[in-house]
Amino acid sequence: MPEHIVSAFDTDLKTLRRMIAEMGGIAEKMLADATEALASRNLPLAQEVIALDPRLDQLQRDIEEKAILTIARRQPMAVDLREVVSAIRIASDVERVGDLAKNVAKRVMAIAGQFQPVKIISGVQTMSDLVLEQLKDVLDAYAEKDNARALDVWMRDGDIDTLYTSLFRELLTYMMEDPRNISFCTHLLFAAKNIERIGDHTTNIAETLHYLITGEVMLAERPKKDNSSYTTLAIEAET
Amino acid sequence: MPEHIVSAFDTDLKTLRRMIAEMGGIAEKMLADATEALASRNLPLAQEVIALDPRLDQLQRDIEEKAILTIARRQPMAVDLREVVSAIRIASDVERVGDLAKNVAKRVMAIAGQFQPVKIISGVQTMSDLVLEQLKDVLDAYAEKDNARALDVWMRDGDIDTLYTSLFRELLTYMMEDPRNISFCTHLLFAAKNIERIGDHTTNIAETLHYLITGEVMLAERPKKDNSSYTTLAIEAET
Repeated sequence: MPEHIVSAFDTDLKTLRRMIAEMGGIAEKMLADATEALASRNLPLAQEVIALDPRLDQLQRDIEEKAILTIARRQPMAVDLREVVSAIRIASDVERVGDLAKNVAKRVMAIAGQFQPVKIISGVQTMSDLVLEQLKDVLDAYAEKDNARALDVWMRDGDIDTLYTSLFRELLTYMMEDPRNISFCTHLLFAAKNIERIGDHTTNIAETLHYLITGEVMLAERPKKDNSSYTTLAIEAET
Repeated sequence: MPEHIVSAFDTDLKTLRRMIAEMGGIAEKMLADATEALASRNLPLAQEVIALDPRLDQLQRDIEEKAILTIARRQPMAVDLREVVSAIRIASDVERVGDLAKNVAKRVMAIAGQFQPVKIISGVQTMSDLVLEQLKDVLDAYAEKDNARALDVWMRDGDIDTLYTSLFRELLTYMMEDPRNISFCTHLLFAAKNIERIGDHTTNIAETLHYLITGEVMLAERPKKDNSSYTTLAIEAET
């Protein structure tokens, strides 16, 4: 590229990176607050989470528009093109993280006033803490273009899937033990599934980072340990 | 654009449209077959659905790559640029439809051999039929660039959300009536949620079409009637 185009392109890239950092900060806060609201039955906090989502949607649209214009105007090649394409993909994943956190927050309203044994929530809390750490790590890896850190996030997703599958069984057990738990546990199951899917989006971002940094697409299958879609419950035979 | 570029651009567009039509056909088949497999407990059919998903993933990656290269090479403007950007967005939504249908298919394995009252499945079947119709309509609207038809799909999503909310209540009721239903109904709840979210992706596609055809972004909020995140169950007080 001619020099004035290079400089304009660098400015475009910096803007895209800054916008993604802003999205990442909002998404992290949404996940942390939604889980906190669930654990402490804090309705106003849940409403704050829901109110943050439109900002994330707007940022995603802005990033997509800016990225497309950048490709058309500057015609970047190789790593430069990958960086712009990656911005579109990462913005899309972070926007989905926000949607999923918003859905967890909505469930805080649904279970308000219901029979809620505290110990049941602790498994969801543990999983959410782990996923939040993954989200922070992958966003840091993006800021620092750190492929090793991205791969580390990618590898650890299996732990979250394992935790989710065991939580799934645990929640079904509570439902069978006492029908008063059913409605509450159903909402927790969906909340847990949403959080597990936020974990999937962090691994998507890790894959995008790997492509951005190395130019190679990850061909290995992700270490997928979520077997809950296949899970039946032995206890069912006993009831 | 100079004439030889216009002609090359038209060829690019035709290829993108053809690839999206292929994705649409696969996604429709996956949703129809996953629901059929669920209703008829057909494990081989469920496995066929799962086996189709990689093709959809590959097509999405190919469409994204082709679209980005087209933007960089041909520098399209206005409606031409919108058409290429729309291809990226629609491919992403159709790929998600495939993921969700695959998840429904996986649950056919989970519930195999479980206590399964047939009447419980009929609600999921009805919802799936409605969503499949939406998916077909929006893909036809894309093929014909028919904005009125896209808007019609967008408006009808509210019906699916209403159906889902009532199905959610119905399934909770079955779970409370008989604990043997819990594991089975939990999987059906997730299957129903996946199908409802396929409906959301059809409205996303409708919004993309509206933007493609008119150049305007839909600012009105979609008619959202899924209240299940807020749903508690009166029956719970009675048990």
